[in-house]
Amino acid sequence: MLAGTRRAACLLQQAKDLLESGVLSGTYRHKRNVNSYIYQSSMSGALLQRIKELEDELEKLRSQFKESTRPAEDMEIKSCSPASESLNCITSDGNTRSTKKSGKERQFDFGSHPRRHVALKLAYLGWAYQGFAVQENTDNTVEARLFEALLKTRLIQDRQSSNYHRCGRTDKGVSAFSQVITIDLRSSQFCGGLGVSLPENLDPGTKSKACTSELPYVKMLNRVLPQDIRILDWAPVEQGFSARFDCQSRTYRYYFPRGFLDVELMADAAKRYKGTHDFRNLCKMDVGNGVLQFERTILSASVRPVQPQQVSSTDQYDLFVFEIKGLAFLYHQVRCMMAVLLLIGQKLEAPEIIDELLDVKKNPRKPQYSMAVDYPLVLYDCHFEGLIWQQVMEEVNHVLSSLQRHWTQSAVKAHVLLGMTRGLEERGGVSSNHCWLVEGSRQKNYRPLLERPCCESLESRINHFVKRGRLEREEGQNGDETIHKGKKSKHSHNACSPSVSSEIPKQSIDLKEED
Amino acid sequence: MLAGTRRAACLLQQAKDLLESGVLSGTYRHKRNVNSYIYQSSMSGALLQRIKELEDELEKLRSQFKESTRPAEDMEIKSCSPASESLNCITSDGNTRSTKKSGKERQFDFGSHPRRHVALKLAYLGWAYQGFAVQENTDNTVEARLFEALLKTRLIQDRQSSNYHRCGRTDKGVSAFSQVITIDLRSSQFCGGLGVSLPENLDPGTKSKACTSELPYVKMLNRVLPQDIRILDWAPVEQGFSARFDCQSRTYRYYFPRGFLDVELMADAAKRYKGTHDFRNLCKMDVGNGVLQFERTILSASVRPVQPQQVSSTDQYDLFVFEIKGLAFLYHQVRCMMAVLLLIGQKLEAPEIIDELLDVKKNPRKPQYSMAVDYPLVLYDCHFEGLIWQQVMEEVNHVLSSLQRHWTQSAVKAHVLLGMTRGLEERGGVSSNHCWLVEGSRQKNYRPLLERPCCESLESRINHFVKRGRLEREEGQNGDETIHKGKKSKHSHNACSPSVSSEIPKQSIDLKEED
Repeated sequence: MLAGTRRAACLLQQAKDLLESGVLSGTYRHKRNVNSYIYQSSMSGALLQRIKELEDELEKLRSQFKESTRPAEDMEIKSCSPASESLNCITSDGNTRSTKKSGKERQFDFGSHPRRHVALKLAYLGWAYQGFAVQENTDNTVEARLFEALLKTRLIQDRQSSNYHRCGRTDKGVSAFSQVITIDLRSSQFCGGLGVSLPENLDPGTKSKACTSELPYVKMLNRVLPQDIRILDWAPVEQGFSARFDCQSRTYRYYFPRGFLDVELMADAAKRYKGTHDFRNLCKMDVGNGVLQFERTILSASVRPVQPQQVSSTDQYDLFVFEIKGLAFLYHQVRCMMAVLLLIGQKLEAPEIIDELLDVKKNPRKPQYSMAVDYPLVLYDCHFEGLIWQQVMEEVNHVLSSLQRHWTQSAVKAHVLLGMTRGLEERGGVSSNHCWLVEGSRQKNYRPLLERPCCESLESRINHFVKRGRLEREEGQNGDETIHKGKKSKHSHNACSPSVSSEIPKQSIDLKEED
Repeated sequence: MLAGTRRAACLLQQAKDLLESGVLSGTYRHKRNVNSYIYQSSMSGALLQRIKELEDELEKLRSQFKESTRPAEDMEIKSCSPASESLNCITSDGNTRSTKKSGKERQFDFGSHPRRHVALKLAYLGWAYQGFAVQENTDNTVEARLFEALLKTRLIQDRQSSNYHRCGRTDKGVSAFSQVITIDLRSSQFCGGLGVSLPENLDPGTKSKACTSELPYVKMLNRVLPQDIRILDWAPVEQGFSARFDCQSRTYRYYFPRGFLDVELMADAAKRYKGTHDFRNLCKMDVGNGVLQFERTILSASVRPVQPQQVSSTDQYDLFVFEIKGLAFLYHQVRCMMAVLLLIGQKLEAPEIIDELLDVKKNPRKPQYSMAVDYPLVLYDCHFEGLIWQQVMEEVNHVLSSLQRHWTQSAVKAHVLLGMTRGLEERGGVSSNHCWLVEGSRQKNYRPLLERPCCESLESRINHFVKRGRLEREEGQNGDETIHKGKKSKHSHNACSPSVSSEIPKQSIDLKEED
């Protein structure tokens, strides 16, 4: 949104420049023709006046933006972030003028500093973003803000050389409480340490420097990041350590109100997800990005009230959470699993439907259904073994109080709405049993999942992308066929794209993991 | 906010028009000068091109607006309202082009229709608005949207002739569940009825018409109002009946989380507000608008948990509500009363401070303090005797389900934030005991209310406005002095401004009542 205004501001500026230059050259070219000169200047005067008005209007608009988005939870803090403030022009390639500029300001000799391979733990509210991972079609991603901050603080020279890996890829509107990335950052540790690599031909004078404490990574980054993206911890890690491939398990949470859902039935059904299954009927098959293998392991899946005491209650306004822990997840997997649970909770499907969908021999093609909406989903935790997180209590407390301020606003607004809702119920209002958490419009007559038209099969999808050159078939020595990502692959620009082959270990071939 | 974009769009249009006309007249005036003609058209071409780009950019911006504000509770519904959609240009006086235009489209003969004096009950979310009452400096008020709808549906000819009264005046960001207005609307009741006045020289043919049911006021208005403003009921009323002067009592609610507040102490202290007191130290003295009398009667005041079971709990994330019922309220009175309760809840003041502030002999001047923030405040109810509300169940159910959709979003987001907050607490995060519900920044060292600098006294305020001619002193026959609103009075344009005098009954002299 802000990017939009900034671009509009740019255009205005350009228009004004063009106008001024245009008019001036005009008046010179015509200075022999007095009438036309007068006409020129009067007309150009009027136009400049008008452009001025437009600029003012846009100025007003921008401030109104901030004004009006301040109360809105997902914007409030972002709008007042130094990082986003400082970016006045976003170029089409998603780079920012200011970062380009800051690059020019002073040549920074990264070669003379140690580098350190570290893990960073991020929390962010995804509601205002187009997703975590950088995309071609938008600049409004968490990763884009993160790299702006890393460049601004001179902790990296550029993304390409930063040895960057992310743990989970969250989708548009999805939040995270423990997203983890690994990356090489500039370090102050000239006398080495876990993950530290010293600069080549380091002169002995520097080497003999007394050891100082590491750069305050968390503080440095939080000072320039938008307020709805916070670094919680950092940890030094071994050189080869990858946030993506060394993650032991991921935990997602999906929050929802009871409404008219049979939550006990949902809690019982959720258990059926546990174990190792082929989830091709419960995800978006991302074959185009080389995801050809849909077996995933779910360690636990539960549905429970957010407040324990609400077990006894039957209030439709109680909040519940679907919590699922797995080794790795497929694209849109959690939102598809949630969508099916919501159908069960509405008694539109029996809990057995889960077993049906997991039985890909019996049901090899995914029936068409809408997934659950994005904003209630949170990548709540990413588990790694043996990491020593360097928690900075002061920073944690800052984040905590900013979250509390934020929570106060949305909780109070929720209760203003609840007060009105209950008021209308007291006046005899009858609430519909509609479930607001499923995308798309809802059919009058429900059509059971197994009676619906199905999506393309995996094989036909593969053929589709092989034809388009985004995947390539290859004959192995022993005659078995493997499929590789082709040259035309959409994500070949991606920093962390291992070449995809069905021989690569199951849990790690996905270029695009869950939302 | 939308109004802003609309105005910007207008300016662009005007700029374009001016440019086109300017260029044309230019090319005619100069048609003898070929060079200048060519130069003209090439330059104007470039400019038009640029303006076009700007327009497109603004178009994009507007849609981004809706995109980005759809999830935000207070905008979401508004953005998709037919009413606001249809208004493409707002003129400075707050009238809309579209309504002007529709006025021209077809002359509508109001004189040939019966009029009916009715009460309308409104619910609205005030978060996106600059307040209820129409203001000179902004078009973004609930009342502005309401009158757009009344004009669009031809239920009134214009505001001036509509015999309009409002019950309460809510402030920027304040919501209402039962705002009540009285107004004369076009009616279908040619054979009369409560509040109906028939057109003069009504031809007997029309008079003998069979009686039909009244126009579907609620449905008609809700179809064109923004979704965050809804009509709940209507009632036919006697000619002289006024929403403002015949209101028996008003009930406000202020929602807040427990946090570190001593809610029991607050509940006990709240009782001290009960009764008839002079509230000049607990409101914004609006002397400039002729408010010279600050005695008000509070019928009840309570602080209680929104969920009864939370009485036993001590969770800082429980929500509470301060509910106050009174005959009438002063400007900012509830937010000042709440601010003092919050100081008591934080143990910064003793409950006795309320008695001190209500004792205007002892403390004639208001100590300087910040009031409580706006968004948790709701005008929850307005009581009238003997009104027969014509509730339309179908409409009530529509409103209910739209509120529930809305609630789902903000409740879920609140719990996403709460989940993170609790997560940080589990990691040892210590939450500050800061209270987020008071405006302005908070001092490090608390200064007791009675030791603070005081605001101007009532008398000096009166003198101030008498000097500026906004108030006038007058000698009564028996020598007693009365004060009238002067000619220069700011609000003299206001539709419902009785001449102000301290002889007018206590509860009805205020031109500007609470938020």
